[in-house]
Amino acid sequence: MPVPQLPDSVHPVLAATVRAAADAYGRARRDFTRAELREEVADGADGTPTMRVDALVEGAIAEAAAAAGVNLLSEEAGFLDNGSAATLVVDPVDGSANASLGVPLSCFAGALVVDEEPVEALTVWFDTGRAWSARAGEPAAFRTTGRTALKGASVCLMRPKRGTEDAWMRVANQADRIRVLCTSCLETMLVAEGSVDAFADPGSDTHRLMDLIAALVTLPAAGGVLLDLHGRPLTFGPDLSRRWSGVAAATPALADELIATILG
Amino acid sequence: MPVPQLPDSVHPVLAATVRAAADAYGRARRDFTRAELREEVADGADGTPTMRVDALVEGAIAEAAAAAGVNLLSEEAGFLDNGSAATLVVDPVDGSANASLGVPLSCFAGALVVDEEPVEALTVWFDTGRAWSARAGEPAAFRTTGRTALKGASVCLMRPKRGTEDAWMRVANQADRIRVLCTSCLETMLVAEGSVDAFADPGSDTHRLMDLIAALVTLPAAGGVLLDLHGRPLTFGPDLSRRWSGVAAATPALADELIATILG
Repeated sequence: MPVPQLPDSVHPVLAATVRAAADAYGRARRDFTRAELREEVADGADGTPTMRVDALVEGAIAEAAAAAGVNLLSEEAGFLDNGSAATLVVDPVDGSANASLGVPLSCFAGALVVDEEPVEALTVWFDTGRAWSARAGEPAAFRTTGRTALKGASVCLMRPKRGTEDAWMRVANQADRIRVLCTSCLETMLVAEGSVDAFADPGSDTHRLMDLIAALVTLPAAGGVLLDLHGRPLTFGPDLSRRWSGVAAATPALADELIATILG
Repeated sequence: MPVPQLPDSVHPVLAATVRAAADAYGRARRDFTRAELREEVADGADGTPTMRVDALVEGAIAEAAAAAGVNLLSEEAGFLDNGSAATLVVDPVDGSANASLGVPLSCFAGALVVDEEPVEALTVWFDTGRAWSARAGEPAAFRTTGRTALKGASVCLMRPKRGTEDAWMRVANQADRIRVLCTSCLETMLVAEGSVDAFADPGSDTHRLMDLIAALVTLPAAGGVLLDLHGRPLTFGPDLSRRWSGVAAATPALADELIATILG
């Protein structure tokens, strides 16, 4: 696996954590078959099954967080209190199904939260080493496309699920191009860097805090927005049963039109 | 851009062509903005507009084909007769929209056709250098998943278009996982190497010969199949107005079930 290409400005705790994660991910891909990586080895704190690939990478992240003396909130382990005012909120392997199958679309996504406020985010695409780094309230090194209308837009969508088929198809019929990459954190970064115009969960309430928190810091820093479909506030908290339908867009106007289209 | 990782066994004409293509693609990404890469600079021989990125890469391929003394059949230039019994059938940049936007999912796909029979195929993912090579009638170095049923399957689909929405959603509701990567040639290789179970155009008749010919050689060599949704034979010929709805699957049984599901 490529080494994460981190800017010098990345917070040392985030940098150490993502290096540990990328290393563990590379070992997991080398040492286990696809079937073994996909095997469900536990039930995660978020109520969904934990694949072996998730468990291996999260284990390395938990060690790094403990070594750095920060708390960890992660989807499988839940909240690990290391007695700090700072908490790493992490999705160890976003796109685990891709990762375990061999589809090279999966990433680490995390944010450093101090006193309940996310202050810095880092997303790293495992398969290429590309990194997106941002600090709350500071402009990022990359920008969204600035597109304001759905007509002509390239949109990433979460796959349709029972009950969201009509909303999904309304967006697909309005947008110029549709992609379904099955890795929300990476898809929101493609919005942030201006490779696509928007990303949305069309109402399945699949996202947990760690699926959105890196985007919550990074999108505004790049000129875009991250919202919940139903306007629920995206706030830090250790309750992993909370869910959202995240909508990332190049501009507030595009987010509004996308949300209106999804809600019909 | 990474250098294509070609096995030693690749036919020298295909190897020289893909190196020229990857080189031109890297220069195009370096020298032009996304808007410039996407700009439509001509009408292609296949009746669709030619983006600048397609034209730049195809130009390099045409030079390589002429230098090797083989004919070329390509989507923008059409048939270029260099007086040979051998013809390179090439999609210079599959996933041009991805390539021009900056979504790193695009590839070169081509086959060497001798006396109207495809004898060898090569697909190279520009953004990673990964290559899939196969010779007609010989087992490839990689295998499909061997999955036989749609239930539990991971399926890549072409995006829904007007008239294919119902078929698209029938497949999405049956399969375990759905992806839309907008690069047919790369998606068929993910089937061939066992990363996903199947790929289909659910009836939009979007595929031309160069979108399918590499898969036509590679899928059977890896234990899978490539079929047309309506059973139309996939044969070589310079007429770029011919269209198919390609269906790639890990096994004939899975292809049959996928086709039956699409046709309803």
